[in-house]
Amino acid sequence: MLELADLSKRLARETFKEVWPKLVIEMGECQREARAAGAPVVILFEGWDAAGKGTLINALSQALDPRGFKVWPVSAPTEEARLRPWMWRFWNMLPAAGAFAIFDRSWYGRLMVERLERQVGKKVWQQAFQDILEFERQLADSGMVIVKLWLHISRKEQARRFKRLEADPVTAWKVGKAEWRQSQQYDKWLKAAEEMIERTGTACAPWTVVEATQDRFARVKVFETVIQAVKRGVDAAKARKAEAKPSAAPQMSRVAAPTILDRVDLTQSLERADYEKKLKKLQERLFRLEHELFLARVPAVIAYEGWDAAGKGGNIRRLTQGLDPRGYEVVPIAVPSAEEKAHHYLWRFWRAIPKAGHITVFDRTWYGRVLVERVEGFCSEAEWRRAYREINEFERQLTGYGTVLVKFWLQIDKEEQLRRFNLRQQTGYKQWKITDEDWRNREKWDRYEAAVIDMLEQTSTSYAPWTILEANCKLHARVKSLATVADALEAGLARRRG
Amino acid sequence: MLELADLSKRLARETFKEVWPKLVIEMGECQREARAAGAPVVILFEGWDAAGKGTLINALSQALDPRGFKVWPVSAPTEEARLRPWMWRFWNMLPAAGAFAIFDRSWYGRLMVERLERQVGKKVWQQAFQDILEFERQLADSGMVIVKLWLHISRKEQARRFKRLEADPVTAWKVGKAEWRQSQQYDKWLKAAEEMIERTGTACAPWTVVEATQDRFARVKVFETVIQAVKRGVDAAKARKAEAKPSAAPQMSRVAAPTILDRVDLTQSLERADYEKKLKKLQERLFRLEHELFLARVPAVIAYEGWDAAGKGGNIRRLTQGLDPRGYEVVPIAVPSAEEKAHHYLWRFWRAIPKAGHITVFDRTWYGRVLVERVEGFCSEAEWRRAYREINEFERQLTGYGTVLVKFWLQIDKEEQLRRFNLRQQTGYKQWKITDEDWRNREKWDRYEAAVIDMLEQTSTSYAPWTILEANCKLHARVKSLATVADALEAGLARRRG
Repeated sequence: MLELADLSKRLARETFKEVWPKLVIEMGECQREARAAGAPVVILFEGWDAAGKGTLINALSQALDPRGFKVWPVSAPTEEARLRPWMWRFWNMLPAAGAFAIFDRSWYGRLMVERLERQVGKKVWQQAFQDILEFERQLADSGMVIVKLWLHISRKEQARRFKRLEADPVTAWKVGKAEWRQSQQYDKWLKAAEEMIERTGTACAPWTVVEATQDRFARVKVFETVIQAVKRGVDAAKARKAEAKPSAAPQMSRVAAPTILDRVDLTQSLERADYEKKLKKLQERLFRLEHELFLARVPAVIAYEGWDAAGKGGNIRRLTQGLDPRGYEVVPIAVPSAEEKAHHYLWRFWRAIPKAGHITVFDRTWYGRVLVERVEGFCSEAEWRRAYREINEFERQLTGYGTVLVKFWLQIDKEEQLRRFNLRQQTGYKQWKITDEDWRNREKWDRYEAAVIDMLEQTSTSYAPWTILEANCKLHARVKSLATVADALEAGLARRRG
Repeated sequence: MLELADLSKRLARETFKEVWPKLVIEMGECQREARAAGAPVVILFEGWDAAGKGTLINALSQALDPRGFKVWPVSAPTEEARLRPWMWRFWNMLPAAGAFAIFDRSWYGRLMVERLERQVGKKVWQQAFQDILEFERQLADSGMVIVKLWLHISRKEQARRFKRLEADPVTAWKVGKAEWRQSQQYDKWLKAAEEMIERTGTACAPWTVVEATQDRFARVKVFETVIQAVKRGVDAAKARKAEAKPSAAPQMSRVAAPTILDRVDLTQSLERADYEKKLKKLQERLFRLEHELFLARVPAVIAYEGWDAAGKGGNIRRLTQGLDPRGYEVVPIAVPSAEEKAHHYLWRFWRAIPKAGHITVFDRTWYGRVLVERVEGFCSEAEWRRAYREINEFERQLTGYGTVLVKFWLQIDKEEQLRRFNLRQQTGYKQWKITDEDWRNREKWDRYEAAVIDMLEQTSTSYAPWTILEANCKLHARVKSLATVADALEAGLARRRG
């Protein structure tokens, strides 16, 4: 495949002088169109050492309005990154709607340098193929334009460039043992590059091989490739906008009683004395587990979803009461900010996941996509339907890294909710907790219920099962949730040790 | 001073049971009031190892709505932090308007552990007193509530707690050599703590010593201290809001012609042929300097301010054209985002400063405070008047770290601006660059001029002088700016080496 690339391709100076200024202007226009259409653009440069990534990225930077792009040089992961699933750092680099992100090397490092220099094992880089395909599909589905460039030069040309860099004291440091090793093992790298390009070149994120022997030729090809991709992306964004009417009347689940929620036994309860005793024991156990987690560098995510007034907050307070605050964080999920809205909906959750050894408790979660966003029509039907798979992929990446993941649904019935709403309204210092919106949501109980059932059915996986908390009795729900967390943490620790 | 603390203070269980629930409710109310008033709150815990910071922070966390606070455990700086001025990481942790930030240890680590364990030299920790005083004054001036708590226990009590922790396998790791060293050198630490409290206890950010022998007593004192401070802060915020009318008619500078701007010789110019030659040479020189900077780990900040259409963009493009994109970043400064508006105005600039070895070019800067914000009445007169000093302090911290700082003012006259505006409107692909706002700003030329003159006079310091670029001739301005940057980088490298 790569051997078919014609590395002798050149462009005459005259032709270049004619074409180039037009491309520069066109690139600027492209950027403004992408901004207007709200389409984010990712351009990533991979290729041989000394193939000219720096020069080409600079040419691109010059043509773009600096208010709208960012260059990300990607090298070995920092400690912060190594303490999280490997895709975490790339999620953090993604552009907002309408912005460009230019990657100088990228997530493909795992399939090239990390693989070939044996920085990761075979299982890890093989898994990376799947992770990358899922990642890019999720981004493309959300409207991201993805341009992937492989800068290609011959082994001979590379060696010539290395020697030129070495001859200059200012650039000599750029050529070290690793670079010459790549030259010596050119064929091995070539094979890996071909496998990478073949297996990850998809319709939504295709590779373009850029013959980079001559700078002029490479520049023009890079610019033309980017311009065409962005134009297609802008057209697609406009088409999507024209089509996308939020599903005004969200789909109801097929009426198949008894549903999974009907089978929940809400009569379960616990006496206060019994509760106090059990709670104390569980909190002591959790305190010890938190410390063991830290020592073993195991991360944990505890996710709470449930009806309004089902008792999420009180439950979380009991969970964290006995913990060391340096080891956990509670992340409440509210309406997304403007910045968050300008990104993929999973972006803010990727940013908030715990590093190894720490616990993050989410008070509401990424399931908002298939609950409130679905029911209120904040996203299109295609979007929330797609979200089940995206969420499962997200949770697989978390747990694949060794994260303990516990997901709670707090179930109460409609009468109990009414009782609690009224109670809140009567108790002075609790009044702020009940708003008109809560009452409005209550009117949509049936539609929410349908969404909950779909959610439980579609996202209960072997690696991330749901736990339903029977929460008509708060005491029962609290004790059950703390016990569930403690058991899950213990199991996670055992997995790490075993 | 600390020897006067009565470490035998206790609270009877009965009293506690009566007081505590009220304090918890009051704390929640406090938080909601702070949010409503938009007052950010910083609570920092310093004190002896094993004094109970964790327990107290957790008690505080339980009482607060998790949507409104964040706990920051502060330990040794990461590599990312060490590559920047030391206050950078704390600026990054500051709460937005209405939010709480709880620090488990803080910037005072420099005056305690870093000083006493000799992790930094005497010059460094002595400088820290000034840095901290300036930092806290800047925050307090902007309406931040700052609560500083020193948790105090006796040497005997500390040793007792160490032994208890050691006896439990889950907590044993918390007591190591460093902890026992603190116990052995209790008196030395005590002296340092006293010096710290004396020299940094200010009216705007006072210290409170918390006698922490008994948990019950400490809890109540911490809660009462925080509640009182927040209440005072909320009252102050309300008072400020009532007073603060933006200076509708911004102050004009005293008419003292000829001003510094009148003395600028705008007839300076350069022929194109000469320009091309000089530009090429300078770009080559800058390319080499960029690499030397990287190798020597010297950071650089290049700041561009100037009239609309004075040629900032073109100037920056020539500066960066020849550089390696991995070594520099252009940060364009536009209207602050909602998140940025919720913070101190310097916050977004602190976040954007380069790490050691890198160059950041600012296209417009922190001087917006004393230019557009002053003239347009986006801030109060007190605020922009205070800003000169704040900016000088900011720049002293940058350059104190070894950052090369170059500040450009691009000066053109009113006629030249008109010529360029018209030209932009006539040239198809440049039309997007000229907006109605540009024309509106132009009408306020005199008021802007007064602000520019004040700015140049008040913020040209020995460590961060302004360079005025005579920009009626773009070619002259470009060559002068590139030469100025090159000279400054060379001088900075020489300082690092010398």
